[in-house]
Amino acid sequence: RINEQRLWDTLMEMGDIGGTEKGGCNRLAGTDLDKQARDLFVAWCEACGCTVEIDKIGNIFARRSGTNNDLPAVGTGSHLDTQPTGGKFDGVFGVLSGVEVLRTLHENNIQTPTAMEFSVWTNEEGSRFQPAMQGSGTYVGRFDLETELNKTDVNGIRLGDELERIGYLGEMELGSRHMGAFFEAHIEQGPILEDEEKAIGIVRLGQGIRWYNIEVVGRPSHSGTTPMHLRKDAMLAASAIVTEMNAIALRHENGLGTVGFMQVWPNSRNTIPGNVKFSADLRNPKPDVLLTMHEELVSFCEKVAEEHEVEVNLDPFWYFAPVEFNASDDVKAATEKLGYSHMDIYAGAGHDACYMADLVPTGMIFTPCLNGISHNEAEYSSPEECAAGANVLLHAMLEASDR
Amino acid sequence: RINEQRLWDTLMEMGDIGGTEKGGCNRLAGTDLDKQARDLFVAWCEACGCTVEIDKIGNIFARRSGTNNDLPAVGTGSHLDTQPTGGKFDGVFGVLSGVEVLRTLHENNIQTPTAMEFSVWTNEEGSRFQPAMQGSGTYVGRFDLETELNKTDVNGIRLGDELERIGYLGEMELGSRHMGAFFEAHIEQGPILEDEEKAIGIVRLGQGIRWYNIEVVGRPSHSGTTPMHLRKDAMLAASAIVTEMNAIALRHENGLGTVGFMQVWPNSRNTIPGNVKFSADLRNPKPDVLLTMHEELVSFCEKVAEEHEVEVNLDPFWYFAPVEFNASDDVKAATEKLGYSHMDIYAGAGHDACYMADLVPTGMIFTPCLNGISHNEAEYSSPEECAAGANVLLHAMLEASDR
Ligand SMILES: NC(=O)NCCC(=O)O
Ligand SMILES: NC(=O)NCCC(=O)O
Repeated sequence: RINEQRLWDTLMEMGDIGGTEKGGCNRLAGTDLDKQARDLFVAWCEACGCTVEIDKIGNIFARRSGTNNDLPAVGTGSHLDTQPTGGKFDGVFGVLSGVEVLRTLHENNIQTPTAMEFSVWTNEEGSRFQPAMQGSGTYVGRFDLETELNKTDVNGIRLGDELERIGYLGEMELGSRHMGAFFEAHIEQGPILEDEEKAIGIVRLGQGIRWYNIEVVGRPSHSGTTPMHLRKDAMLAASAIVTEMNAIALRHENGLGTVGFMQVWPNSRNTIPGNVKFSADLRNPKPDVLLTMHEELVSFCEKVAEEHEVEVNLDPFWYFAPVEFNASDDVKAATEKLGYSHMDIYAGAGHDACYMADLVPTGMIFTPCLNGISHNEAEYSSPEECAAGANVLLHAMLEASDR
Repeated sequence: RINEQRLWDTLMEMGDIGGTEKGGCNRLAGTDLDKQARDLFVAWCEACGCTVEIDKIGNIFARRSGTNNDLPAVGTGSHLDTQPTGGKFDGVFGVLSGVEVLRTLHENNIQTPTAMEFSVWTNEEGSRFQPAMQGSGTYVGRFDLETELNKTDVNGIRLGDELERIGYLGEMELGSRHMGAFFEAHIEQGPILEDEEKAIGIVRLGQGIRWYNIEVVGRPSHSGTTPMHLRKDAMLAASAIVTEMNAIALRHENGLGTVGFMQVWPNSRNTIPGNVKFSADLRNPKPDVLLTMHEELVSFCEKVAEEHEVEVNLDPFWYFAPVEFNASDDVKAATEKLGYSHMDIYAGAGHDACYMADLVPTGMIFTPCLNGISHNEAEYSSPEECAAGANVLLHAMLEASDR
């Protein structure tokens, strides 16, 4: 069993890096705070005898040798970056459960058959740079390295430059770790485990995600002198799309639709907006339903363009197809061995494990979080809930190493 | 008659300060560019023998002596600040028509019975700092000086600090000029004169304006894991209000409704917005209709708060009641004397003359602008159209000085 108090203490120590007044965390990818968090992870792993390598998109891999190092290693990992109004658990819990597994093996001098690998993935959140799971997606070959390093934030700063600046633009080739299985522990981020009073969610599926950049181009003009019928109001047209995003979600079982980001130009209260840029996020566990939702958005944007006499540019720049986790049974076996209550569940959010599933048998372990709230400073998971997840991770990894 | 070419040349020279690639102007109030524009105006007035004074809110007054300086002076003026995507004419045309009147009097050695005053008013646009017509409104006593100097832009920079920094925080008491009449020439900013093929608009009324800051407070949470029915989506609620602003305007004759400004927090695409701040601008020439529009907005916001389970804070921070211009007949007389086609019209935008009407008989002269477009870089008024307006200004001022 892992050490519950020690796990909790590392969570709180890590959470102080970018910690907010309201008890959350604001530690965007590629910032100085991200560097501090990464440095702390590296120091903790090295203190347990790991060797650390960084790949070309800034992912960190810490390796603890096993009895037979020719065998593929068993890996775990998640991310240390957060949302601007994030919590102390999303991603971080997975990384530090790994550290806790490492420390447990280390202090008990446990020799595992295979090596064990503990990883941190770059920009999982997709908040500062897009898309989400950028580090893991690039590692597994879903994204082109140069394209991703050239991605910029709203201020035009390149991801590649930020990684170099904070000392995490590595040399290691992408996809080059020799791994035989991968596990990720994560808070559920939704309300289901709490509602059902289960300690562990066996994640069977990661739902599909479609991300868009939408730009509405109207014509800036005076709010006091432009008659209503002569307007080309980019804000009004954008609002129609925001409203429809909600309607699309409601029309489909398990559908979700969100506009989280918007920039208005020239953003002056007596000028009718000439340009509004915003994001759209559609999700569904079923790929065919998600495709229908996509088509509804596309045709609604065309309708808005016509009715509002504006240009609507829809860029569907990211599609993440639903993924099944094929090492879920290892997670289930470990959970049952340890005697935790559990249920099958699907992941509403994307996770690094979703991309690792491209390369190796992968499993995810969910733990409950208070009121199902995440991407909010109030995000919380209790010490016992965290400990349960880390224990399942430990035993799932041991199981896989033993095979 | 004024010198058409010289007027045009000063417009183009002034337009270069903050000039944009697309031929417009971006010269926000209190910036270095505003300082450059003000310095140029002061230099031009001093070159014609004026004495220049600055008041406590940064308004500039240049005075040309008359035969009897005990008589109240005849004034003109407008503003040099622009929208972020403004043109070269809005405001600037009024100021430079004044300069052209001054130069015409000066080069012809015309002694006027009363002194003539040429003014520049601080932050008429209301884009960087609110409300609009801030300098003239404070000068006439509608706004409190300290409150206005303490107003901040979106970056928290104080107007008072900016005026001091650019050297235009003066000592002169507000409301202390001895004036007997005030005229302002301005481009119409709307399509009516052009449609009706009239050279001059005799402005009878300035329509009513109500400005609001609206804040929607929801709850930030994850876009991928928060079921639709558990959301408190500030963006969705804000969009409902944007849509209703348009509907309110359409329900009332001559109604206008605009949301030009919006800020989203935390503005991350996979976090449901927890806070959206935006502006609302309602206008109508009839005060009772504008009041009904206001009441409809208030009750709609209450409805949205309930339906979306969010907090909606509506701050109706500025009401400008419709104003009648009681020196319009001077403008009409000058227009007819000069033989220009004309029509009565009302002002859709607010103007410094609207506040000066509190203190002295005031008249406004409108000139056509291309396609009725303003607050847009494409804003344009031809040399002849500008010259007609400046000629009417000259003769209206002479008329009033003669009385
Ligand atoms: N775990 C998590 O919050 N990932 C962010 C990517 C997403 O939007 O689902
Ligand atoms: N003239 C002008 O554009 N004034 C700005 C104030 C307003 O919004 O009407």
